[in-house]
Amino acid sequence: MSSPEPVAPPLRRRGERMRRAVLAAAVDLLSSQGLAGATVGAVARAAGVHETSVYRRWGTRENLILDALTTELDAALPVPDTGRVRDDLLAFFSALARLLATPQGRALLRLSVEHDDTLEDRRGPYWSERLDRAVVMVRRGVERGELAPDTDPGLLIEAVSGPLFVRVLLSGAPLDDVLVRGLVDLALTGARPR
Amino acid sequence: MSSPEPVAPPLRRRGERMRRAVLAAAVDLLSSQGLAGATVGAVARAAGVHETSVYRRWGTRENLILDALTTELDAALPVPDTGRVRDDLLAFFSALARLLATPQGRALLRLSVEHDDTLEDRRGPYWSERLDRAVVMVRRGVERGELAPDTDPGLLIEAVSGPLFVRVLLSGAPLDDVLVRGLVDLALTGARPR
Repeated sequence: MSSPEPVAPPLRRRGERMRRAVLAAAVDLLSSQGLAGATVGAVARAAGVHETSVYRRWGTRENLILDALTTELDAALPVPDTGRVRDDLLAFFSALARLLATPQGRALLRLSVEHDDTLEDRRGPYWSERLDRAVVMVRRGVERGELAPDTDPGLLIEAVSGPLFVRVLLSGAPLDDVLVRGLVDLALTGARPR
Repeated sequence: MSSPEPVAPPLRRRGERMRRAVLAAAVDLLSSQGLAGATVGAVARAAGVHETSVYRRWGTRENLILDALTTELDAALPVPDTGRVRDDLLAFFSALARLLATPQGRALLRLSVEHDDTLEDRRGPYWSERLDRAVVMVRRGVERGELAPDTDPGLLIEAVSGPLFVRVLLSGAPLDDVLVRGLVDLALTGARPR
């Protein structure tokens, strides 16, 4: 316990290696063949493990896919702190737009709106947690006096992120930097003449 | 042809009556039992017609449901023209929020994001057409000088409607007038101090 470099016991490390191999295979299959292609059998074959080991660890195919996507995507959405609210928002929402334009991002969002009892507790929270993290950019803007004191941080984040999600889910319209800039500037400045 | 009150031939009128009865039954079942309860058999029984007549007219269950929901909901989203852009937007988006809070509205939106080849061509356009209609409120605001001349009308409509759709599809957070007012005022005024 006082060791400066505590290491997991061998069994656990093997488990972690297996876990990473399976998740990487799942992400590859999701990217190349979409949700339908990422069956437990195909993932297990690609990772070189037994199908039963996958079921033992994840229980269901849905849990495996969710774990693969969230692990993969979590690194892709850092919350910046540039000292200027507009730059922070542009960086964050450009990253979100890029993410939603990837096959994995689309797959995770599609999975999030499908009815499925086994996932109900984890998918909604996935996006809410990421957007909750983003709220701090707005709070800092208020503290610096860049934004009005009565700004509702959550509402601003919803107003910029909502159209990005809707374009993926409903309209299929493209996500690009022009769109992100337009939404951020509308939320900051409004459409009234100044 | 020069008759002042042209009437449809008897056969066609019977068809229209049958159509309305089936659509009303479908809406009732969707409201009371959700998407899963609105089978062709249940709808036909409730409308007092043969299941084969329903298939002959609509082809698939999905077409029937879509027809029922769009017919029902079309009357619920008028585009107001009060002479003030804020009042127009509040009225329109409050109506949209109320609509999305009904079982039928939810059902139509859920149906719109589900993958289904038979509906692909009609569901996306359903919402796009309704939002396209809304753009005129913003244009009139620009013409009256209430909004900046470089306002992007479609973007403003997306910024207000997006969060409403996302709350239904992803977060399950409530849709109320406080939310609608907050989104409309953010899009009009922005979060920067004035």
